[in-house]
Amino acid sequence: MNPDRPERVDRTLIHNGAIVDIYQDKMQLPDGSFENFDFIKHKGAAAVIPVLDDGRIIMVRQYRNAIDSYTLEIPAGGLNGADEPTKVAAHRELEEETGYYAEMEDVEFLLSLYTTVAFCNEKIDIYVAHNLRKTAQHLDDDEFIDVEVYTPDELKSLILEGKIVDAKTIAALSTYLLKMSPAD
Amino acid sequence: MNPDRPERVDRTLIHNGAIVDIYQDKMQLPDGSFENFDFIKHKGAAAVIPVLDDGRIIMVRQYRNAIDSYTLEIPAGGLNGADEPTKVAAHRELEEETGYYAEMEDVEFLLSLYTTVAFCNEKIDIYVAHNLRKTAQHLDDDEFIDVEVYTPDELKSLILEGKIVDAKTIAALSTYLLKMSPAD
Repeated sequence: MNPDRPERVDRTLIHNGAIVDIYQDKMQLPDGSFENFDFIKHKGAAAVIPVLDDGRIIMVRQYRNAIDSYTLEIPAGGLNGADEPTKVAAHRELEEETGYYAEMEDVEFLLSLYTTVAFCNEKIDIYVAHNLRKTAQHLDDDEFIDVEVYTPDELKSLILEGKIVDAKTIAALSTYLLKMSPAD
Repeated sequence: MNPDRPERVDRTLIHNGAIVDIYQDKMQLPDGSFENFDFIKHKGAAAVIPVLDDGRIIMVRQYRNAIDSYTLEIPAGGLNGADEPTKVAAHRELEEETGYYAEMEDVEFLLSLYTTVAFCNEKIDIYVAHNLRKTAQHLDDDEFIDVEVYTPDELKSLILEGKIVDAKTIAALSTYLLKMSPAD
């Protein structure tokens, strides 16, 4: 076995959840001993930074049961099956959650991230959408979302003041702002 | 019930994991129907951006079973019980994972984030540590970590090139870099 890392010797399904499946992994450590690791399997997700022609960014505010509070986030959603291209999902979630439509060619890849590498494989591909056109929201039955619009400077302040707490949103917006900022 | 959001009517424990506990939440939607939501309970974590006197930042590289690959991250770790102050945990993980010590007064709060609000309450408080002094790593039995050092410009490039994929690390570093950058 690899002397520098734990090696998985078994994976047992514990529970099929609504959006994640729960596994227990039996790992062998380099010293030969065994330890159980949690593994949460997620089918992947996509998110999008919707940029209006004047540079302002469209955000969504919604109640999140897992943290029992409302959060300000970029639009995002799980893939319709693990095979759905993330760009298609980002394009769909943009219109469903914000009521703005972009042509597929105006949806550009920004970055990929894993939300919590210690125990979950959830990967989110994050895009930036331009040339937006107002249409209408199409929310899922369990989605209740308010749309809000902010300038990049306002979003930078909201991040630094701790008023945005969702990791994908902080990572996406601050990476977008860094990319936009002039080189030193 | 609140007409604008799902309301939790029951929470059932499914499994006590190694670092997370798995629940099934029964939610009532505003239309009166019921739906199951996943809820993953985590005790919380702390992370730290360790800044050397010359401005370079200490990073850790380690194998992550959940995504079956190696990641470049800021030092981080779970709390020793939900009551441990996150600053104490950040201070401890700094020395354990990197072999650098900081006085508690040189560990400064940067931001808090939730890693994946759709189904998990994991919150990470992220600090910045200065005036570091070399001591020695003290790794847990299941930790195998390489220490690497980068300039802020190198880390900005690694984020924009997609070579850093851990959400807390992207969020922490890009927020730190935004905060350091001159106002527009």
